[in-house]
Amino acid sequence: MTYCIGIRLNAGLVFLSDSRTNAGIDSISTFRKMIVYEKPGDRFMCLLSAGNLSISQSVREILQVEKIPGPEGEDPITLWNAKSMFDVARVLGAAVRRVYAQDGPALKQNGIDFIASFILGGQIGGEGMRMFLVYSAGNFIEATRETCFFQVGESKYGKPILDRMLTPTTPLDVAAKAALVSMDSTLKSNLSVGLPLDLLVYRAGELAADQVVCIDEQNPYFQMIHSTWGQRLREVFDGIDDPRWDGGDATHPLISRSERYEPMKKIASPGDRVI
Amino acid sequence: MTYCIGIRLNAGLVFLSDSRTNAGIDSISTFRKMIVYEKPGDRFMCLLSAGNLSISQSVREILQVEKIPGPEGEDPITLWNAKSMFDVARVLGAAVRRVYAQDGPALKQNGIDFIASFILGGQIGGEGMRMFLVYSAGNFIEATRETCFFQVGESKYGKPILDRMLTPTTPLDVAAKAALVSMDSTLKSNLSVGLPLDLLVYRAGELAADQVVCIDEQNPYFQMIHSTWGQRLREVFDGIDDPRWDGGDATHPLISRSERYEPMKKIASPGDRVI
Repeated sequence: MTYCIGIRLNAGLVFLSDSRTNAGIDSISTFRKMIVYEKPGDRFMCLLSAGNLSISQSVREILQVEKIPGPEGEDPITLWNAKSMFDVARVLGAAVRRVYAQDGPALKQNGIDFIASFILGGQIGGEGMRMFLVYSAGNFIEATRETCFFQVGESKYGKPILDRMLTPTTPLDVAAKAALVSMDSTLKSNLSVGLPLDLLVYRAGELAADQVVCIDEQNPYFQMIHSTWGQRLREVFDGIDDPRWDGGDATHPLISRSERYEPMKKIASPGDRVI
Repeated sequence: MTYCIGIRLNAGLVFLSDSRTNAGIDSISTFRKMIVYEKPGDRFMCLLSAGNLSISQSVREILQVEKIPGPEGEDPITLWNAKSMFDVARVLGAAVRRVYAQDGPALKQNGIDFIASFILGGQIGGEGMRMFLVYSAGNFIEATRETCFFQVGESKYGKPILDRMLTPTTPLDVAAKAALVSMDSTLKSNLSVGLPLDLLVYRAGELAADQVVCIDEQNPYFQMIHSTWGQRLREVFDGIDDPRWDGGDATHPLISRSERYEPMKKIASPGDRVI
């Protein structure tokens, strides 16, 4: 499987991806899922991909030469001359549809769904930073103030922490930390998500990546998060009162059966006492 | 959807279920998913169900009268005369298969998958407590020392906390707390899981439920968990160092790009500088 996170903050963008792919549980490989398209001073774009690897690799390859019609009398729009990230998302959508046209029917014949999804974020010239989630059909949605991050792949294990920690005003480093904690929980729960990780931080307006890091087992910061987070979580958990079953002196009692029990349906064989 | 947890500990059993069902996001209802079969002093059994509600309701109904062949010359085995929980799981499997035989073909004609899963736990006479996860095909697996809990329904959001907190030696009240924290995270992330909750705690050897509680929005203990857990999580998160991008004086630096950067593939249009 895969787990990728893209976050759009006021201060910039954060991207994090794992690198495990699997064709069945007995065929595990390492493929990087992050790719950076950059023309420093002009445009910065980062693409994260999930789904069928043959599809996402083809899309990445085609994306470099994909064109969509430009305005009347102008050149076609590509990754490198697009004037807005919205147009880049359209170019990416066109690349996805081209791969679908090429491979979709044969995949279908073999009972394989055409599954791929992409997080595309970046900034072009004076436009604000934008981030898109592009689906298998080439359609897409954009991150907003209310929903400032996207996930693709195995998203559920690591979503609660992002829901709790991220808002558009979150600083970049804090968001990077949240992404790594989210990834750590996912690595723990799903074997098909694996190291190394690619982490990229982009600062608003810089038009070039700020920090790009490949994180493996030896990375001291990720090791620290891995050990500290679990331990502190345990401490917090232990610090919360256990349930109290009586309404007596407990600060936070559960409703006790004897006092305020709302009965559940109980079934006993005829003649047995139903409590 | 649904979220149910069953935990088998040395000290006893813990069961927790939500009560939301939905047929599409615009058709939400409340149905209890926990049912207790109990003959105090003789046997205690608790069943949690997930999947298609029409299937799980039919299974619960049929289970009361389902029979499987007994040993040569003896009565058929039912819920109420089975001598082991393993046999009760077989009876439940037979009930699932009976519903499949009745409704499966018509469901298939309508393009509806036969989806149902059950957590069955309990104790009969002098046998040890046992817990089973029963699938749509009527087959089942049993909880062991290494895997002491089962989840059905929306299991992913709430799994990391159970993975971290539960072992067979966990006390009952602590396990109930872990189940409620896990449920709280799931409620926050999936609208199709909802209150009220049914929580049941069974103490080893008692052959009758110890605590049975229906938890709604007003429950003070669950309210406390809901507010405290999020707040403490935030404190722990804030207490972990933000990443440091230089190898300098930071205790836990990330590998900085300038010093130990393993380059990712970058693509630029011809003539552009590739960093």
